[in-house]
Amino acid sequence: MIWGPFQMVKDKKQSRPKAETPKGFRDYFDQEVSERNEMLQQVARVYHHHGFDALETSAVENVDALGKFLPDVDRPNDGVFAWQEDDNSWLALRYDLTAPLARVYAQYRNELPNPYRRYSMGPVWRNEKPGPGRFRQFYQCDADTVGASNVSADAEVCAMLADALEEVGIPSGDYIVRINNRKILNGVLEMIGLENQAERLAVLRVIDKFDKVGVQGVEELLGSGRLDASGAYIDGVGLSKDQAAPVVAFLTAKGDTNEKTLLNLRDVVGNSSTGLEGISELDMMAEFLTVGDYTSKRVQLDPSVVRGLEYYTGPVFEAELTFEIYDKKGRKRQFGSVAGGGRYDDLVKRFTGQTIPATGVSIGVDRLMAALRDKAGSQIDTIGPVVVTVMDRERLNDYISIVSELRSAGIRAEMYFGNPKNFGNQLKYADKRRSPLAIIEGSEERDKCSIQIKDLILGTQLAKSATLEEWKERPSQFTVPRNEMVSTVQEMLKALKK
Amino acid sequence: MIWGPFQMVKDKKQSRPKAETPKGFRDYFDQEVSERNEMLQQVARVYHHHGFDALETSAVENVDALGKFLPDVDRPNDGVFAWQEDDNSWLALRYDLTAPLARVYAQYRNELPNPYRRYSMGPVWRNEKPGPGRFRQFYQCDADTVGASNVSADAEVCAMLADALEEVGIPSGDYIVRINNRKILNGVLEMIGLENQAERLAVLRVIDKFDKVGVQGVEELLGSGRLDASGAYIDGVGLSKDQAAPVVAFLTAKGDTNEKTLLNLRDVVGNSSTGLEGISELDMMAEFLTVGDYTSKRVQLDPSVVRGLEYYTGPVFEAELTFEIYDKKGRKRQFGSVAGGGRYDDLVKRFTGQTIPATGVSIGVDRLMAALRDKAGSQIDTIGPVVVTVMDRERLNDYISIVSELRSAGIRAEMYFGNPKNFGNQLKYADKRRSPLAIIEGSEERDKCSIQIKDLILGTQLAKSATLEEWKERPSQFTVPRNEMVSTVQEMLKALKK
Repeated sequence: MIWGPFQMVKDKKQSRPKAETPKGFRDYFDQEVSERNEMLQQVARVYHHHGFDALETSAVENVDALGKFLPDVDRPNDGVFAWQEDDNSWLALRYDLTAPLARVYAQYRNELPNPYRRYSMGPVWRNEKPGPGRFRQFYQCDADTVGASNVSADAEVCAMLADALEEVGIPSGDYIVRINNRKILNGVLEMIGLENQAERLAVLRVIDKFDKVGVQGVEELLGSGRLDASGAYIDGVGLSKDQAAPVVAFLTAKGDTNEKTLLNLRDVVGNSSTGLEGISELDMMAEFLTVGDYTSKRVQLDPSVVRGLEYYTGPVFEAELTFEIYDKKGRKRQFGSVAGGGRYDDLVKRFTGQTIPATGVSIGVDRLMAALRDKAGSQIDTIGPVVVTVMDRERLNDYISIVSELRSAGIRAEMYFGNPKNFGNQLKYADKRRSPLAIIEGSEERDKCSIQIKDLILGTQLAKSATLEEWKERPSQFTVPRNEMVSTVQEMLKALKK
Repeated sequence: MIWGPFQMVKDKKQSRPKAETPKGFRDYFDQEVSERNEMLQQVARVYHHHGFDALETSAVENVDALGKFLPDVDRPNDGVFAWQEDDNSWLALRYDLTAPLARVYAQYRNELPNPYRRYSMGPVWRNEKPGPGRFRQFYQCDADTVGASNVSADAEVCAMLADALEEVGIPSGDYIVRINNRKILNGVLEMIGLENQAERLAVLRVIDKFDKVGVQGVEELLGSGRLDASGAYIDGVGLSKDQAAPVVAFLTAKGDTNEKTLLNLRDVVGNSSTGLEGISELDMMAEFLTVGDYTSKRVQLDPSVVRGLEYYTGPVFEAELTFEIYDKKGRKRQFGSVAGGGRYDDLVKRFTGQTIPATGVSIGVDRLMAALRDKAGSQIDTIGPVVVTVMDRERLNDYISIVSELRSAGIRAEMYFGNPKNFGNQLKYADKRRSPLAIIEGSEERDKCSIQIKDLILGTQLAKSATLEEWKERPSQFTVPRNEMVSTVQEMLKALKK
């Protein structure tokens, strides 16, 4: 049996396929790959140091094991990439690393340590409409503790998130981990007498827009409605002013200190037991974090954190980068959120019927990567290999032996493998590879047991600005005895790294 | 719009989903993940040192960009995981790393250096019937040079494969890279007058069975046919004895030395120019390899390499592990092939119409990993984190501060996050985590500014075999002053690593 799609392609006119990355996907080249790997390793080291073990699940899951757990219910179009098997079952690509964790925990719960603490990193896939900077495959890097009900586990995750950000090169002061708690909001809703689930959900959706529409916008949307920027009128939830006020007070409860914030929150929840529980959890987390020396410069309570409130059941947190960068048009802007997490106690229940407490964090690797690149420029050495050029194609053996010698001395090197006929092409190639230098051995050099070295980096610099005098004084191409080749190259590379 | 599969799940009875890895997929835990990552990094270092740059394409490709390029045409059922998009186009998961490379090369050919030398590592997916040790997602680790026609590029890949195997811990003598050339076979077929493509393909299919059926089997299958082990009669290709003989002579041409092998091959191809070209290529490769000191102990010519002959167009090579291992039933066996590659000059042509020479290697990461594990046992430190137990749940802050202190000293540590009520469960947890030691601080210790350390590894050893005397002499649980905790733990961990 030949697969449907191939059959189709075969039957079509014999046109050539277009060479293009599928819409919404991207390719990563060279330093993009190595820098990300480096960053993932740094984060993994932090997670591991905190006691988490690695887990790598398959990219593919049974669709019913995934369920529909996308945190962002505001985008009902969002979905997964799924397909039907020959036996009519459905498979899908994972859309995050949490759903597979729930499946793994349920599947192996008798063998795994309890609590189960694992980290995972890898691509996830979202069947969403792609947009600028919004891809359908991206990396996540998660750590979760499953089976821990005490919020000390949540506090640990927040502290670890701060550590991870500092490990990858974002110093204290350039980021902030902000913490909120879903239970406080539940308390507020309880207090204003909002019991109806649909109404509660509507309030959550409004709160989720707080970042965009601000206090006044939220007030309007909680009340009778609001005229959108586009001119459209958005219906409100229909709360009275008295009902809306505590919700807004909750969102704006942040004080100068954690103590002040907690006091403000106490005013908001009245005597709702759920609300007080949430406040007590925040209080405990603040205390745990202080013990571990995670001061409010790094981690702080902030009830305006609204992202994920709908998804999480207790503590919610988010890491934001606070340094300013300049966009392509030279405008100042902030990078915003690069990681988020919280407590979700219902995920495993789908499989086992048992409520299992769980808390964790997910780092948006590609966003964090982009931020690092904008902040500090490329972190990794971008020097290409030494290129040994081919002057005489009958003597490839000699060039191979030069390459072997360089490599044995620890120097990244290669022979030019293209058509050697046009020497200019060989130097163009070396330029494209960002080679620091090229080795040239013609018959003349060979006869004299010498070798030519062309300093490509100096050459480029000179070509830009040098006077004729300078050209003469600092020749970018020079001859050394053959037996001094390796040491000369080593010195040149060492000088470059300074 | 809600996605079809979810809708379906929703409409079904509200049964719980089964927590299981999809059929043919697997989950990797802990050291399995870290060991593989370690190995991938080692191989990447070797590839990079040889001048290759990283490339990571998306897991998803347009189906028509993938085409049907599975090397193993003997399994027509094999396919890819594919699904249809809303716009009716088809997407698919990549089934190897070579097809995406061809797409990338065609797409970016004006910007990329030429030749383009890249390495890629990551999972690939095959929609095959799963079997024992045969998964539908597995890792590959490839390096290819696109745009190099000279077989020095093929020789480099073979040498690099040898280096990579040694880098991951397989010493010279425990593996062999064997090289063959498709052109020689083409020469043989030319010489025996087999011009018909279908007949040639039939011969290739027979040759592909050489490993299984041996010389006699191949002779029969090339001739009139063969009685299968299962009792079924397999029709032969119908060659005469005179036609079949050179094919068999080709397969068995390996001599004691590369020189002898080349002599034998010259007898086989007669004056076929294609065949002579293939022999000359093998000869050159052998020479290049000798220059780089890749002697026949590491790399050798061997015309019995038949895997991939149908797919490749010139040199073909394969790395085989030669050390013996014992299977679960205690029987000696060899691990066989862990990597393969060769020259494929037609892959880019599908997109551009131009024939672009290319050669490369693919390492079967999971197989190699399994071999290393069988050979040497787990390479990576399997010691878990230090577990700080919770004796008094009102004093979590104290335990957190102990953990902070250990971590700051570079010690992997965590607090017990489960329900602390049952102390036995805390020690069971530490055992499951393979913790080297547990920290215990009750009120008594606290009052005396001391701390208890339970040596879990010693404890386990003693529990197995110790006499009462030994128990007394080497207590597995002891008290140290609080301010000596870190140094004591560090000493214990250092002793373990010896």
